[in-house]
Amino acid sequence: MNTDTPPSTAQTLADPDTPFAVVDVHKTLRNIDRLASKADQLGVTLRPHVKTAKSLDVAALLHHGTPCPVTVSTLAEAEAFADAGYTDITYAVGIDPHKLPRVIALLRRGVTLRVLLDSQEQAESVAAAARQAGIAIPAQLEIDCDGHRGGLKTNAPALLEAGRILNDADCLDGVLTHAGESYYVSTPDEQRLAAKNERDTAVAAADKLRTAGLPVSTVSVGSTPTAHAADDLTGVTELRAGNYVFFDLVMAGIGVCRIDDLALSVVVTVIGHRPEYGWIITDGGWMAMSRDRGTANQSQDQGYGLVTDLDGHLIPGLVMSAASQEHGTLTARDGATLPDLPVGTRLRILPNHACATAAQHHGYHVIDSSRPTTAAPGVQAIWNRISGW
Amino acid sequence: MNTDTPPSTAQTLADPDTPFAVVDVHKTLRNIDRLASKADQLGVTLRPHVKTAKSLDVAALLHHGTPCPVTVSTLAEAEAFADAGYTDITYAVGIDPHKLPRVIALLRRGVTLRVLLDSQEQAESVAAAARQAGIAIPAQLEIDCDGHRGGLKTNAPALLEAGRILNDADCLDGVLTHAGESYYVSTPDEQRLAAKNERDTAVAAADKLRTAGLPVSTVSVGSTPTAHAADDLTGVTELRAGNYVFFDLVMAGIGVCRIDDLALSVVVTVIGHRPEYGWIITDGGWMAMSRDRGTANQSQDQGYGLVTDLDGHLIPGLVMSAASQEHGTLTARDGATLPDLPVGTRLRILPNHACATAAQHHGYHVIDSSRPTTAAPGVQAIWNRISGW
Repeated sequence: MNTDTPPSTAQTLADPDTPFAVVDVHKTLRNIDRLASKADQLGVTLRPHVKTAKSLDVAALLHHGTPCPVTVSTLAEAEAFADAGYTDITYAVGIDPHKLPRVIALLRRGVTLRVLLDSQEQAESVAAAARQAGIAIPAQLEIDCDGHRGGLKTNAPALLEAGRILNDADCLDGVLTHAGESYYVSTPDEQRLAAKNERDTAVAAADKLRTAGLPVSTVSVGSTPTAHAADDLTGVTELRAGNYVFFDLVMAGIGVCRIDDLALSVVVTVIGHRPEYGWIITDGGWMAMSRDRGTANQSQDQGYGLVTDLDGHLIPGLVMSAASQEHGTLTARDGATLPDLPVGTRLRILPNHACATAAQHHGYHVIDSSRPTTAAPGVQAIWNRISGW
Repeated sequence: MNTDTPPSTAQTLADPDTPFAVVDVHKTLRNIDRLASKADQLGVTLRPHVKTAKSLDVAALLHHGTPCPVTVSTLAEAEAFADAGYTDITYAVGIDPHKLPRVIALLRRGVTLRVLLDSQEQAESVAAAARQAGIAIPAQLEIDCDGHRGGLKTNAPALLEAGRILNDADCLDGVLTHAGESYYVSTPDEQRLAAKNERDTAVAAADKLRTAGLPVSTVSVGSTPTAHAADDLTGVTELRAGNYVFFDLVMAGIGVCRIDDLALSVVVTVIGHRPEYGWIITDGGWMAMSRDRGTANQSQDQGYGLVTDLDGHLIPGLVMSAASQEHGTLTARDGATLPDLPVGTRLRILPNHACATAAQHHGYHVIDSSRPTTAAPGVQAIWNRISGW
């Protein structure tokens, strides 16, 4: 484990003022190993999406401390990872032409930074910028496999038009798709089907381009659910996933992980009781958890999160059911008894959506749940996050 | 206007990479003046809650550049405001005893930092810490006026017990209540009623304590809706409100402000189109807007926000209806035609909840909509936010 920022004194989770975010490095590594093995079996390169943790320290766990291919969601991440020696980066948000100068600056530093686009007008901007800068800007065509967000349908005329424009400027790298709708399917069969569809669509788009005489190096697919569900990625060159390093209640709710796999939590303190309403009040509100209610439409709505003790053991039936800026409300559900938790009791909240909850914090207090302790879990390190755009 | 951090070159909203947050200082000052006048009329001290903007620069607008009484939601805010010369601060979240050393450190610096509590056990912790430190910790008893969150009912035996414990340690400052449920009432009559109830409850609690021989200096009430609706605050000493400096779609939805009063927005760029679905895709997702969907249960659900052009003029019928981490989806509603907005077009999104959206950003690009421009609005300054706990 990278401990480049050790706590100034030997701290435990009982020490820092709450709320603060905790990463369990043991569970993180287990999650990382699971998908790395899967990618090995499938014979594809794994290109983790670092948008969830946004941490060089977490990223160092991905590949034994050495830089690996990564996906980023902002140029701020790309720049921070480039500074740390990462040279193989895909910026997986449709490119805004205004941002191309920063892309070109990274390319000039020797970083292979791929951009994404899904229109002829973006292809023209990229081609023009590449010609003007005298440098190839590797670009991927975003393919829509499930109507989730952006991307071109495989039969869209713009696919070949944009491909030709990029290829003429020596910028065509390949195709990329993301099965974003897989977050809403909850059976293994549906997830396998989503993974198959994601693969089939990406490969079909690549074939379409190749048939038109256009070169396709990269065929990139992925989402956390489909990456874990895929059983055949023939024709695909790389797999992307981000959330899986931490997982969360949304992923547990669709069966991609167990609740025990959740590696991110937020430590909060009980600051009050309203027995007449059945409420326990904590100092962890939406500022600490985010406003994400990703489980609201799942079969089990987990409110703003489930509650564990400081050691990480679930407190049965207790849920964070409401949030204001700096207050959380815990309630008992399904006839559970509200536990006796005096003012000052520290708890941990498991989040709906790790990407959103992590983004509310500057960094992580790192624990290792594989190390037995008699006191509260010890803080092994403090890891910073990259923020902004 | 405070311009302590001028942009390095003469910038407009067309210049920085998107997304970024914008504050219109003209509208902010108008909102500030409106409530300041109201507090003057009512004859109470205004103690603005700085948790929305979390900015010393915005706070400097509150009282002509000089420190005024403020309310904070975190000790990080209290410390930053103390560093800037503010000496009259109320920390309006129920006190966690673990945080008392930081409270005492601020008191020793000469800052009158009031804490809040609603239980006998917290009163005992505060009294014990005050005795041990040899310093009075001014404490307010939180009163529940509407079943919103924390607080003691005026008839709770713990009110007098906690009051006595505090008074015995020379720590009893007064009472505080917050009509949080007023965010959910949408007529002027209901808001006036909520304001009356808030006042009546706070005054009743103060009377109860005084009748028991306990001194009450501060009788503090407030929320943005009730602060604007109150017509009689007899017996109240101070009024709190936070959101009103920026306002937002939730406040506009219940009629506390007009949409034209919204002083915070987020600049985004169009990065794609899905005409087959009626979508315009931008680079502003929930990371830029937050996951707050505060208007979801109002009579007009505003999605993740309404859309204006770069000058701030509403684009009729266009709404940000969906968000992923770095993508926003704009759609037309009520039969409106989707406007023709090419890739690269910059727009501004007006948020549901200013507190939550502002928290997604390091700071604000400041514009002044009272200055006419021929180009995009000029950036007058960049103001930083306080973050963390």
